[in-house]
Amino acid sequence: MKIETLVENIKKKKSFLCIGLDVDVDKIPKHLLKEEDPIFCFNKAIIDATNHLAVAYKPNTAFYEAQGTKGWKALHKTILYLNEKHPDIFTIADAKRGDIGNTSSMYAKAFFEDMGFDSVTVAPYMGKDSVEPFLEFENKHTIILALTSNEGAFDFQTKKIDGKEVYKQVLETSRTWKNSKNLMYVVGATKAEYLADIRKIVPNSFLLVPGVGAQGGSLQEVCKYGMTEEIGLLINSSRGIIYASKDEYFAEAAAEKAREIQQEMETILNAI
Amino acid sequence: MKIETLVENIKKKKSFLCIGLDVDVDKIPKHLLKEEDPIFCFNKAIIDATNHLAVAYKPNTAFYEAQGTKGWKALHKTILYLNEKHPDIFTIADAKRGDIGNTSSMYAKAFFEDMGFDSVTVAPYMGKDSVEPFLEFENKHTIILALTSNEGAFDFQTKKIDGKEVYKQVLETSRTWKNSKNLMYVVGATKAEYLADIRKIVPNSFLLVPGVGAQGGSLQEVCKYGMTEEIGLLINSSRGIIYASKDEYFAEAAAEKAREIQQEMETILNAI
Repeated sequence: MKIETLVENIKKKKSFLCIGLDVDVDKIPKHLLKEEDPIFCFNKAIIDATNHLAVAYKPNTAFYEAQGTKGWKALHKTILYLNEKHPDIFTIADAKRGDIGNTSSMYAKAFFEDMGFDSVTVAPYMGKDSVEPFLEFENKHTIILALTSNEGAFDFQTKKIDGKEVYKQVLETSRTWKNSKNLMYVVGATKAEYLADIRKIVPNSFLLVPGVGAQGGSLQEVCKYGMTEEIGLLINSSRGIIYASKDEYFAEAAAEKAREIQQEMETILNAI
Repeated sequence: MKIETLVENIKKKKSFLCIGLDVDVDKIPKHLLKEEDPIFCFNKAIIDATNHLAVAYKPNTAFYEAQGTKGWKALHKTILYLNEKHPDIFTIADAKRGDIGNTSSMYAKAFFEDMGFDSVTVAPYMGKDSVEPFLEFENKHTIILALTSNEGAFDFQTKKIDGKEVYKQVLETSRTWKNSKNLMYVVGATKAEYLADIRKIVPNSFLLVPGVGAQGGSLQEVCKYGMTEEIGLLINSSRGIIYASKDEYFAEAAAEKAREIQQEMETILNAI
């Protein structure tokens, strides 16, 4: 998907909400377990109920891999369903991959070509040649982990190299890589005050922001420091939306939670 | 697998060779393509021909994911075959995973429980709570990327935080994590001279060493600087072994390449 299309959708839907499909079979409504593919059934119901309120969906591959081959199939069916029924939706494989060059090419093919995701998350530890193979794909987007929302972010990401935090080095260095226009970044909402500094380095890049809600981040704060003219933000919510209820009306409950966030976003967008 | 068992196997086989099963369908012998599962057929033939020369096998998940659901199935069949036929072999899922806590737990379950690998490679960028969930599993091993064999290793890994390289910070910090006895580390052979310093920080941990051969690293150098009393090294070779030939005798050719390395290892082990 082109960035322009994503921006148009945000403006049309008055939403920059990304819904994280972190689907754990132990947490989905019990009545779905009798279905042949409970995970896909759950995803389909969530997508059908919320797609007018969100511009992106983000399955985290860990939850699918934990289910073995049938989980991998459910992931394939989910991305196929999104691409066929909702081609306006921006899709993110939250895979946090990254390997030496020829191996990263394999991952890029898996997520961009075989599955048809619009984007994939990538860890930066192995540097340039581990990320550039992802950047070669036209209208596909590589979302590098910069500053994550977890406690462990302080172990290395916020430590300083030559007086500058590791995550800032990642932001700056990655801008010099080939096809860096295809880069986006993960920046946790729990560290919203960092966003002002981050915007000095990547003034226009889209940021994927986890940690609003469940992990304590504030949407208002994130927008205050991180929003650009073209919005430039995708705010992710996973558990807070998809597990809003465990009864048969789980999809409606999810839609209600998604609408709450979307309306907060609409208020913010109307005010700019 | 217990570390003691791995060490016993090394001493028995006089080998600390790990064979990387980075299987690309475009590179395997053409006659296998008519089989129902060419990737598994290829792996089985390689394993049958080389298991007396190697102590570990390391499929890189990227190559399997690039083949979609059928690739994932081939990976499952490969690990099942290894566990059933060769329980003495140490198995490594080269997956380079890492995510926030509850998500890393999912990956750990996928690789350790669902598939039954002995170990998995993990990227350290997200810090303590992204790695500790892997460390909870008894007799399972987590192999953290410290200093990789690619050019991009110089982008961040060798930069200094408070006067100490990032990869050294990773080594030191990780030793303070819960169940750190279950840690091993990836250290590229192309940087063998770094191994003396690394051994000052992790004197006894096993190191998984890629980059010997194809990427230019020297086995002699790696052993000189990195070997411990309990050996402490697993030297990986992938392409140099598995693609030694593309004809019908590919497995025999692979065994010949593996034997060359094993014999060099035997000479080194006999000399200590």
